[in-house]
Amino acid sequence: MTYCVGISVDQGMVFMSDSRTNAGVDQISSFSKMHQFPGDGERSFTLLSAGNLATSQAVVTRLHRDLESDATINLRNVKHLSAAAEYVGRIGRDETGKVKPKEDDDLSLSASFIFGGEIAGRPPALFLIYPEGNYIRASYQTPYLQIGELKYGKPILDRIITRSLSLEDAARCALVSMDSTIRSNASVGPPIELLLYDAGSLKSGRHIVLEEFNEYLISLRAAWESSLRKAFNDLPRLPAHEPSVRLVDG
Amino acid sequence: MTYCVGISVDQGMVFMSDSRTNAGVDQISSFSKMHQFPGDGERSFTLLSAGNLATSQAVVTRLHRDLESDATINLRNVKHLSAAAEYVGRIGRDETGKVKPKEDDDLSLSASFIFGGEIAGRPPALFLIYPEGNYIRASYQTPYLQIGELKYGKPILDRIITRSLSLEDAARCALVSMDSTIRSNASVGPPIELLLYDAGSLKSGRHIVLEEFNEYLISLRAAWESSLRKAFNDLPRLPAHEPSVRLVDG
Repeated sequence: MTYCVGISVDQGMVFMSDSRTNAGVDQISSFSKMHQFPGDGERSFTLLSAGNLATSQAVVTRLHRDLESDATINLRNVKHLSAAAEYVGRIGRDETGKVKPKEDDDLSLSASFIFGGEIAGRPPALFLIYPEGNYIRASYQTPYLQIGELKYGKPILDRIITRSLSLEDAARCALVSMDSTIRSNASVGPPIELLLYDAGSLKSGRHIVLEEFNEYLISLRAAWESSLRKAFNDLPRLPAHEPSVRLVDG
Repeated sequence: MTYCVGISVDQGMVFMSDSRTNAGVDQISSFSKMHQFPGDGERSFTLLSAGNLATSQAVVTRLHRDLESDATINLRNVKHLSAAAEYVGRIGRDETGKVKPKEDDDLSLSASFIFGGEIAGRPPALFLIYPEGNYIRASYQTPYLQIGELKYGKPILDRIITRSLSLEDAARCALVSMDSTIRSNASVGPPIELLLYDAGSLKSGRHIVLEEFNEYLISLRAAWESSLRKAFNDLPRLPAHEPSVRLVDG
C-alpha cells in the first residue's frame, strides 16, 4: 500500500509520499513515489503515485520519454494545468490497458495520482487523477487530496488544514498525518519524502527525505506524542450525571 | 456503517458505539448498537454490533429469548466468558444462514460484534466476534478492539491506550476516537453511547448517551481542537538543511 497527500495553501503546495511497496507481506521494498518535472523556470510539476508499481513506473517513464522526444503533447508544452492533468490521466489509462491479466486473476493494474504544479502566468493547481483517467481539483473548501491508505491520517488533516496555513505548517501537519498512518498500518513506511513548493517560484521547491530514524522525525514524533498526552489529560472530565436514556426497547 | 470500540484496562472495560445505520445515503436512521445483559449481580455482559441491522437485531432478540426460555445454553448459565463468546458467535452465524439473498445480489447479511463482560470469580474479558462465529480476545499488548469504520479513530487509540489507563481516561480517549471518525465519515453518527464497567462490580455499569449537541461533547470537542492546534504550533520547525537525496534514477 501507499500513502500520499497533496495540500494546496495560499503560500504554495506541499507534496508528501511514503516509500513502501508490497506485493504480499513477504515482498516489501522501497521505491520513491514522488516525481518532479521542473521546466526551466517557466513551469514546475510534481507527481505522486499509488497503486500498481509497474503501472506507476510506466507512466513516469512515458512522461519523461514524451519530454525527450518533444511529443505533440508533453509536460513542457501543455498550456493549462488541467490539460496536463488530462494528459497524465490518459497515459495512466493507456499504460494500464497495455497489460492483460489472466482471467480469474484478481491482480489490480490500476494506479492513481496526485498531480500539481504551476505554469507561469496562471495560478497553481492540485489534482487527484483516477485510474480511469478523470480527475478532481483541490478547492478552497477541500484544500488537500489523498491517495492510498488514507483513512488513518485524515482526521488530523480535517482538523488542521485550511488555505491560510503557512507552507511549513501544512508540511508539519502532513508529517503528523503520515506518522499516524505508519504507526497504524504496516504497509506504509519510510523514507518519507516531502516537497514544499512556493507559489509563484516556478522552481522545483524544497525537497526533504526523512529516513525512519531521522533526528528531526524522532523529535517531531516525541513532541507530538507528549503534547497529545497533555491535551488528553486536559480534556474536561466526564459529566457526573449524564442522562442514561435506554435507546432500545426490549 | 458503524463504529464501535471496546477497551479493556486494569480498572475495567469501556464500550462505545455510534448510532447511525444506513442502507444507501437516502436511508439513514438511528439505532442503538449497545446491548446490555445484566445478571443479578453474578455476571454482566455488553454486546456491540456492526454490520447488517436485521442480523444484529435477530442475534440480540435470540439472546434475550434464550434467557427467557432458560435454554440449555444462555447468557445466565454459561460458565466461561469464552463459552459465552462462542455461543454469541454461533447465534450470529445461525441467524445469517437463515436468510438467502437472491443470486447476484451483493447484499451482505453478516454482522460482527464486540462482546465483553465478567462472571463472578473469573477475570473480565473482551472479545471481537467475527461473522463466521470465531473470535479473538483483547490482550495485554492490544487492549482494545474495534468493529465497523475503524481506521479514522485508530491512531489516537494506538498512541494513548495502555492497560494502566484509568477507566475514565480510556472513555475519554474512546470519545476522541469517535469524534474523529464522525468528523471524517458521514456514515458514522450520534448519539454516542458509552458504558464504563468497573472490574469486579458485576453491575451493569455507568451508561452515558451523548446526543450531537450535548454540552459535554461540545466542550470536549472544543478542548481537543484547541489543544491540537497548540500541540501543532509547538512542533519543532522543519530542519533548515535536510539531505535531499534523489530516491529515483531518471
